[in-house]
Amino acid sequence: MEKDRVQAFSDGVIAILITIMILELKVPRGVDLAALRPLVPALFTYVLSFVFLGIYWNNHHHLLHATERVNGGILWANLHLLFWLSLIPFTTGWMGENHFAPLPTAVYGVVLLLAGLAYQLLQSAIVAHQGAESRLREAVGKDVKGKISVGSYVLAIPLAFASCWISLALYVFVALLWLVPDRRIESKWRE
Amino acid sequence: MEKDRVQAFSDGVIAILITIMILELKVPRGVDLAALRPLVPALFTYVLSFVFLGIYWNNHHHLLHATERVNGGILWANLHLLFWLSLIPFTTGWMGENHFAPLPTAVYGVVLLLAGLAYQLLQSAIVAHQGAESRLREAVGKDVKGKISVGSYVLAIPLAFASCWISLALYVFVALLWLVPDRRIESKWRE
Amino acid sequence: MEKDRVQAFSDGVIAILITIMILELKVPRGVDLAALRPLVPALFTYVLSFVFLGIYWNNHHHLLHATERVNGGILWANLHLLFWLSLIPFTTGWMGENHFAPLPTAVYGVVLLLAGLAYQLLQSAIVAHQGAESRLREAVGKDVKGKISVGSYVLAIPLAFASCWISLALYVFVALLWLVPDRRIESKWRE
Amino acid sequence: MEKDRVQAFSDGVIAILITIMILELKVPRGVDLAALRPLVPALFTYVLSFVFLGIYWNNHHHLLHATERVNGGILWANLHLLFWLSLIPFTTGWMGENHFAPLPTAVYGVVLLLAGLAYQLLQSAIVAHQGAESRLREAVGKDVKGKISVGSYVLAIPLAFASCWISLALYVFVALLWLVPDRRIESKWRE
Repeated sequence: MEKDRVQAFSDGVIAILITIMILELKVPRGVDLAALRPLVPALFTYVLSFVFLGIYWNNHHHLLHATERVNGGILWANLHLLFWLSLIPFTTGWMGENHFAPLPTAVYGVVLLLAGLAYQLLQSAIVAHQGAESRLREAVGKDVKGKISVGSYVLAIPLAFASCWISLALYVFVALLWLVPDRRIESKWRE
Repeated sequence: MEKDRVQAFSDGVIAILITIMILELKVPRGVDLAALRPLVPALFTYVLSFVFLGIYWNNHHHLLHATERVNGGILWANLHLLFWLSLIPFTTGWMGENHFAPLPTAVYGVVLLLAGLAYQLLQSAIVAHQGAESRLREAVGKDVKGKISVGSYVLAIPLAFASCWISLALYVFVALLWLVPDRRIESKWRE
Repeated sequence: MEKDRVQAFSDGVIAILITIMILELKVPRGVDLAALRPLVPALFTYVLSFVFLGIYWNNHHHLLHATERVNGGILWANLHLLFWLSLIPFTTGWMGENHFAPLPTAVYGVVLLLAGLAYQLLQSAIVAHQGAESRLREAVGKDVKGKISVGSYVLAIPLAFASCWISLALYVFVALLWLVPDRRIESKWRE
Repeated sequence: MEKDRVQAFSDGVIAILITIMILELKVPRGVDLAALRPLVPALFTYVLSFVFLGIYWNNHHHLLHATERVNGGILWANLHLLFWLSLIPFTTGWMGENHFAPLPTAVYGVVLLLAGLAYQLLQSAIVAHQGAESRLREAVGKDVKGKISVGSYVLAIPLAFASCWISLALYVFVALLWLVPDRRIESKWRE
């Protein structure tokens, strides 16, 4: 099984997800600034989810780049990741439209957490398939970033019921963690 | 006619179908657990349809992999398959929103049945085009899985009017049949 | 400018159009056969438009296959074609939801007519770019099918105000004209 | 990092954006010409945005054609551009449905302006990555067209509150600036 079609299919799904989210941003009825104001949280959530999907696309790209061949297990691990990513437009819409109410903010984190775990599952499936001399295992290292992300989600989910701002801060922190391209930090964390 | 563009087009359509289904999952008005509860059947249906489309994408991949060239007949057999697959988001929405009412549950099975038959038609068109020494005919064998699937749909459709749970169990059974990667069973069934 | 990306972009747009049409098929509220009945004209229109877009994808494939290189003019002629095709989901929804009322049925034909003319414009742009020894000019020949199609649309548009069935019969006739794979007829018409 | 997947992903996103805009064109209830009349501004806006996205796709194509390799910075500059482009269906819907009310018309320009600046940022990131002997820097030259576009948007945004027609005229002017294929003018402006 060649990896090309897996890559093309994943690219397609992520490209569609990143763009259909915008359909949740309903065109307002009014034509003044007051009509735009209720959209601010929705727009902020959209930006956040756009960045998350961008990070996943980027990392997915690197992951498959380090992969030579795929088997049935990897294929389904990949579809499993795409499944959780496909729920992001839904949780984005729910959290954004309800101005960061506790439950939607927690559920947003649950989907991010499950997507994060699905990504690690996919990573493990590829490492296992590559066997003892896996190039990928070396590149991934201890995967400190991945672990910090999962830990942040686990914290953010219950904290959403205390204060949505803490949860949002944690989501933004995870996004920045992957965005900031400081390679020294990155290589340190990967040791 | 090269098969590349047929593959790319089919990938595109399936990737879009698998993601627009999520648009049927309407963002709820409320922000408590009670607001999520009516979504449970819709979410379950979404998962089921996601898996079915994933299976079709996977099998379609293998099918075209064993194909060297395509003609006009194969092209239209492929579009015919994509047509029935394109109705899955509609039946998914109808069945999920109506909590597995008899008719939507039966119609869900009708579309799966017609997609299944369209797949076998495509398969036959490719085998016929490859002629006497078709690599694909050998690989497909007696296609026991395909026949069990069609039989299950034929059973599930009328049974939806007796009990939707029997029909759903049959749909889940077919999905598992294709998902479970037990290769010994698979090779046996293909004899 | 390579033609690969033009092909990929066009494939993407047509694949999306063919699938978003299904979003116009609104999930009905009821769960009995009576709930499905008003959908019949919408479903019929969907099938018709699916076939038309399938034909365009197919012909577009052949057209670009016979093209070596593209220039700015061809690129915009291609986007012009995609523009008219992009209106098909709109006219499909309007005609289908209104059970073939005169104006929507006529407008459906207007968009098909303009898409047809856009296709011939694209064809001419490619022939002109290829110069005197154009492979494509020979393949296209007198383009009898194209002319019959345009003529049928021109007839169908005003006739929609007399009887929608005549217009629909003409649309179906054009679709069959391109679908039926009788190569002897095809080669005759191309002489 | 190969540029192929960046290209494919961008093509996918732009193809989706150009087609989901049509979903904002709501199927009218009525079946007479009066039902179509309120759609005229929406349709005009759709055409304008279709042309803008077509221009971006075209220019993006040329930009990446002149690029050999991409790094993390270029990748995110590209996603940043796609982000602003992804807001075009929203502003298109808002301006079109409100018949060019001042604020929506200004916001339409704001998004075009930010997309334009994002494009120049991407351009600069690629030039910087290519170093002293950048092929692209030469091709871009003084980028007079880009500067005129940005200037036109900066004018159009406040003027929307005086008269929407001036702003619209400026948007159309920018679109024509990039559409008209007069190469002598183009090469002059690039000096």
